[in-house]
Amino acid sequence: MGARKKPVHALIGCRTIGTIRSRFVRAVGTPVQPAFARGARGQVHVDERYAAALDDVEGFERVWLIYWMDRAGPFEPRVIPYRDTRVHGLFATRAPSRPNPIGLSAVRLVRREGNVLHVADVDVLDGTPLLDIKPYVPAFDAHPASRAGWYDVAGGARKTADGRFHAFRRGPTGRRR
Amino acid sequence: MGARKKPVHALIGCRTIGTIRSRFVRAVGTPVQPAFARGARGQVHVDERYAAALDDVEGFERVWLIYWMDRAGPFEPRVIPYRDTRVHGLFATRAPSRPNPIGLSAVRLVRREGNVLHVADVDVLDGTPLLDIKPYVPAFDAHPASRAGWYDVAGGARKTADGRFHAFRRGPTGRRR
Repeated sequence: MGARKKPVHALIGCRTIGTIRSRFVRAVGTPVQPAFARGARGQVHVDERYAAALDDVEGFERVWLIYWMDRAGPFEPRVIPYRDTRVHGLFATRAPSRPNPIGLSAVRLVRREGNVLHVADVDVLDGTPLLDIKPYVPAFDAHPASRAGWYDVAGGARKTADGRFHAFRRGPTGRRR
Repeated sequence: MGARKKPVHALIGCRTIGTIRSRFVRAVGTPVQPAFARGARGQVHVDERYAAALDDVEGFERVWLIYWMDRAGPFEPRVIPYRDTRVHGLFATRAPSRPNPIGLSAVRLVRREGNVLHVADVDVLDGTPLLDIKPYVPAFDAHPASRAGWYDVAGGARKTADGRFHAFRRGPTGRRR
């Protein structure tokens, strides 16, 4: 049972399981991380068929939202990120113009109502498709002293987006956003 | 520019960008989190077309690997997770039998060689398709005091998988794994 050969760039059968709602309807002015979105409320509408899978999530102070940044621009290998003034490789940044525009945010869980999670510190555009929810577990996820490359010495201080990474990605329907 | 209506369960055009290699060829015995995989080495083979996007990643002590758990079993709304003896909603656990079996691991970055990242604390099955790499940034990702529901009082202590969440998910080709 050795490692299987898998063609790189194979299509993955990933599906929307819900929608993230927020007050951010365009990239310009949207916080670039939950850390810069203190207090910004939002809701995570999970499809009814998954409601039972939310049981016990109420016990967690934070959850990871994993979502599809459907309005991100096309992949760029090197970018000037919001938090610096110099160019870096895309995978050394959290910029949204990724090969797969997957977003990752640790948001605060305020309360659950059935299949809806009320969350805070939301840095996500309204209407963003949800892919997964995971509980935030410090024993797995918190590495407060981890060295963070250019972020540790960065010259930029933007806390909100300016639209540089958002434009005309074609959606699943082929329609331009 | 209000929120767009998006059909839940829409197919997302997600693609493999590389492959994770490890010494774990089957679920049984594979660590269930990087925290329980101390020292386990692995390699992340990123497709050549994305090599330039890895520039400056060397400065980070850890990176997030986001990957597709292609050998996970089908979605189950309620599970008994490895770290407890009681049933919980799937989204309150890190179990792999998710609607989208997306995995998230903060692994230690040992070094980069071109398009290959040598990593440690790997809890990923050999041959797993890679979807994204993000730098681990404590200012965004570390919440060491975040309350963690049942994990904070859990009765289970498994550090490796036993196979309960891995079986016969059909791959993109329809072939059983």
